[in-house]
Amino acid sequence: MKKLHMRAFGKPSTASELIESETPEPGAGQVLVAMEAAPINPSDVLLIRGLYGHRPTLPAALGTEGVGRIVAVGPAVDPARIGERVLIIPTLKHATWQDQIAIDEDDAIVVDPAADVLQLAMLGVNPVTADLLLRRFVDVPSGGWVGQTGGNSAVGRYVITLAKQAGYRTLNVVRRPEVAAELLELGADAVVVSGPDLGVQLKKALGDERISLLLDATAGDVVAELAPWLVHGGTLVSYGGMSGAPVVVRPGDLIFRDLHVRGFWQKGWLDTAPREEFAAAYARLAALVTDGTLRVPITATYPLEKYQDALIHATQADRVGKVLFAW
Amino acid sequence: MKKLHMRAFGKPSTASELIESETPEPGAGQVLVAMEAAPINPSDVLLIRGLYGHRPTLPAALGTEGVGRIVAVGPAVDPARIGERVLIIPTLKHATWQDQIAIDEDDAIVVDPAADVLQLAMLGVNPVTADLLLRRFVDVPSGGWVGQTGGNSAVGRYVITLAKQAGYRTLNVVRRPEVAAELLELGADAVVVSGPDLGVQLKKALGDERISLLLDATAGDVVAELAPWLVHGGTLVSYGGMSGAPVVVRPGDLIFRDLHVRGFWQKGWLDTAPREEFAAAYARLAALVTDGTLRVPITATYPLEKYQDALIHATQADRVGKVLFAW
Repeated sequence: MKKLHMRAFGKPSTASELIESETPEPGAGQVLVAMEAAPINPSDVLLIRGLYGHRPTLPAALGTEGVGRIVAVGPAVDPARIGERVLIIPTLKHATWQDQIAIDEDDAIVVDPAADVLQLAMLGVNPVTADLLLRRFVDVPSGGWVGQTGGNSAVGRYVITLAKQAGYRTLNVVRRPEVAAELLELGADAVVVSGPDLGVQLKKALGDERISLLLDATAGDVVAELAPWLVHGGTLVSYGGMSGAPVVVRPGDLIFRDLHVRGFWQKGWLDTAPREEFAAAYARLAALVTDGTLRVPITATYPLEKYQDALIHATQADRVGKVLFAW
Repeated sequence: MKKLHMRAFGKPSTASELIESETPEPGAGQVLVAMEAAPINPSDVLLIRGLYGHRPTLPAALGTEGVGRIVAVGPAVDPARIGERVLIIPTLKHATWQDQIAIDEDDAIVVDPAADVLQLAMLGVNPVTADLLLRRFVDVPSGGWVGQTGGNSAVGRYVITLAKQAGYRTLNVVRRPEVAAELLELGADAVVVSGPDLGVQLKKALGDERISLLLDATAGDVVAELAPWLVHGGTLVSYGGMSGAPVVVRPGDLIFRDLHVRGFWQKGWLDTAPREEFAAAYARLAALVTDGTLRVPITATYPLEKYQDALIHATQADRVGKVLFAW
């Protein structure tokens, strides 16, 4: 079988390498999963470049999340699980960019076989990130505003949907005005475009209202422009740095307005939360993927053999929608 | 009597104005205090410039803190208080840059008449800020490191003394190498100089150890250089922006290392803490001023009439030590 791995950190399309590997044997308590779909996330790209919070020992197999079918079970696992479609919990213990993987059965969460397999394959990282960003830091009041940079990212779109479901309003900052209509249709309450007149747009969108929770995927000066729109004591959570710039906040906003600046890393949650907590979160969100509530645009799927094209496509700045491997 | 006030926000030495005013009458529950000494703090300068978190209604009397003698009491106040030396709690309700002020007796905390009156006059704002910065955010372990920018500021020096007393070590960033010896003598454990080789100096000072709490008075890029030296989950508290630049932190430090960025404003504490809490804090710190443990350099004192010279002196960038009004 085939497996994508890396021997050194570097540019994703050249640092990665497709190798022949023996099909793993499921050990005691394990299941063997034949992969069906596995996305390429920004965090995978950062990991290959050596810029992620986790640096695996090299050589390392790649791929964080995905969905597949159980095709065999090891000792002490109910053979009735064979045939289940499962989500692989993205603990970074298992690499999903390979034909088949053997994992602990607890790390394989059963999902609805009738659901869209590509949308399901993206459940492990982005929707749960959006869900936790909305729930873990601040009790947003009903009707309160959640602001976000990166409104057009995959996480940003999940935030729009989940915030609407929870009764919050979203104010979304985007770089390109042409995506506004699509985000408004998805349920965004306001879309503003970063640039010199951002302040005017914010005043128009918010008036005398203020943001309860600000989610930041881009970092940079836009953060300093949005921070004054947070309520006194409000929280800003950084979960990405897509602009490459640092997070910038004026001291007066921290000192006089008691803003809290935090960060969120899903791996930190998976490493510390009890399994029941994340199993419950995944089950709840999986139902929303199954019924079509949670979905993001997909731009292309590739077979594992075309990994170089796939990785180049996934790192294009102007790409809209996700790139996945599909079997 | 004379009173310093302002009719408009602006440059401190020209926006301020010395006026003749009637001596106030102490009302029920009030005492009349003849001022003895009142410092000029950076927050006073910010307030006059209109850049502080609190903007008084104009015209406004000036001066945040100070020490004086009770010279008269109003109805329902024990006449035995006449003659007490008192600290005026810096709630911004009372303006201290005037010959005499009438204040609620609860806002006049008795202090030792034998103590250095100029050092006592500075107790209300800076030492209590240093004390709360060290105690309010993080439980620094015994022997743990507290890092700070602005190590040579008045608050920075109080932090060095109070941290040493609490059994913490301090790493102090300064702009000018010539102040290092003085801070080391005061009790600093390490002094580093901001500039291109700050990283090398930090490595030399800290080795494999990390900072538990980082206090920031300057903002700017130095914050991003220090943040990686915080422990995982560590806290950075901004309490000043002396460089004029924003606070800058890399998203990776927030996301992967779970740093918390906060702000501290003493007025916020005074506005919300129970009176017993701050009376106890002032009493505890006043004893440390009396016994000489807490003291900072003084560069000059001025009579109220020389307010323009005093305010110009207090805003000089290269000044070392505090400027006070003294009667």
